[in-house]
Amino acid sequence: MVKKELPKYQVIANDLLNKIQTGIYAQNTIIPPETELADKYQVSRPTMRQAISLLVNQGYLERRRKRGTLVKKVKIEQEFTHLIESYSAEMSAKGIYPKTNLLYFDEEKATPEVCKNLQLPEKAPVFKLVRLRYANDQPIVLVTTYVPKQRIPELINYNFAQDSLYSTLEKYHLKVTRVIRKLEVMEAEETTANLLNIAVHKPIFYFHTQGLTRDEQPIEYSIAKYRGDINSFIIDVQR
Amino acid sequence: MVKKELPKYQVIANDLLNKIQTGIYAQNTIIPPETELADKYQVSRPTMRQAISLLVNQGYLERRRKRGTLVKKVKIEQEFTHLIESYSAEMSAKGIYPKTNLLYFDEEKATPEVCKNLQLPEKAPVFKLVRLRYANDQPIVLVTTYVPKQRIPELINYNFAQDSLYSTLEKYHLKVTRVIRKLEVMEAEETTANLLNIAVHKPIFYFHTQGLTRDEQPIEYSIAKYRGDINSFIIDVQR
Repeated sequence: MVKKELPKYQVIANDLLNKIQTGIYAQNTIIPPETELADKYQVSRPTMRQAISLLVNQGYLERRRKRGTLVKKVKIEQEFTHLIESYSAEMSAKGIYPKTNLLYFDEEKATPEVCKNLQLPEKAPVFKLVRLRYANDQPIVLVTTYVPKQRIPELINYNFAQDSLYSTLEKYHLKVTRVIRKLEVMEAEETTANLLNIAVHKPIFYFHTQGLTRDEQPIEYSIAKYRGDINSFIIDVQR
Repeated sequence: MVKKELPKYQVIANDLLNKIQTGIYAQNTIIPPETELADKYQVSRPTMRQAISLLVNQGYLERRRKRGTLVKKVKIEQEFTHLIESYSAEMSAKGIYPKTNLLYFDEEKATPEVCKNLQLPEKAPVFKLVRLRYANDQPIVLVTTYVPKQRIPELINYNFAQDSLYSTLEKYHLKVTRVIRKLEVMEAEETTANLLNIAVHKPIFYFHTQGLTRDEQPIEYSIAKYRGDINSFIIDVQR
């Protein structure tokens, strides 16, 4: 199979996007002028303009009269009151194209941490599911999920690259009706940084979630690492 | 100026702390034995012991008889459902000794960002309040708060090193009954890092909060920077 080469302006656009996403070109700053970039990438000005236009159209950059080209704030806002919805449903509702890359799915013996959060006996069998989730083709979160095998042994028959875990649980009358989430921040270590397409040590959200069914039994325990640069969360509390 | 080199045990302690904070040494797990670590860092056992003792004294590690050295859980957990309580009330309820250092309090003209969040006309007068808040003598959050002057001109007479903003607002029938909070993460820049007693570029929580009174009018707009290493937040959502 012959691998098709990308046109030059797309290669440059990808490189610029990478610089935006890793913070080399920070949000709300002006990128170098078109002429300077054309020199740097050793392309003609029209090619350079095409690369920039692509990112303008995708919403990453904005042309400002007189000032130059601005790196836009492109954070995805998620509402915590909606966090029981499936990832795909939530993203689709925002007009964002979701995608899931299934990195791992198999049966394992639960670690002490997992046992504690799923209220399981020592070394009980659990399904472990590692998914990298995308929004508009950008990786945004790496999630590791544990589900007790005993409550839903049929889970192994599903393909979680396509199927939604929450919808599948619902089919087996194991709908998640309550989630308890702990929010922390940390620096991305190398593996996480590589998967999320950010620089090592950049700040990420680090969430631990327990999902409970109506009988208050934990059915899911997840560890999620959200890129800090393009995710934000809204919470609305009344009393 | 001669740059002073850190003593070896401190360099090692910093490295261990980094491993704790990035989860390489996870909470509630045992770190490798002293002899193994001394080999790894190529130092003597007394030097290694000194490095560990430093982190034991700082509350990050705990020596357990027979089992080894445990990574302690040192995060302050705050529940989001309680976030309308005053800081002092919430900390005291957890048995944590709160303290507030008032860094700045004066009248200013609102910036466009503040106008938008407080629904004020351009350059309207606001009170700006900058507070560094402590838990058990450790700085944990730097908060900048804006309050519209017109709704409560008497605010200037209070001393917010001692007085609670929320209690004061209540006295004037401006009780905060709803908060909308946006959660982001960022790296601490130098000033913030110095005030919070963390290293530059360490991850911090970055919250923007709008506080509303019963008539749904914003009475407060705050920007809070929470240390990432000792704060965590719990959220509990049911449907």
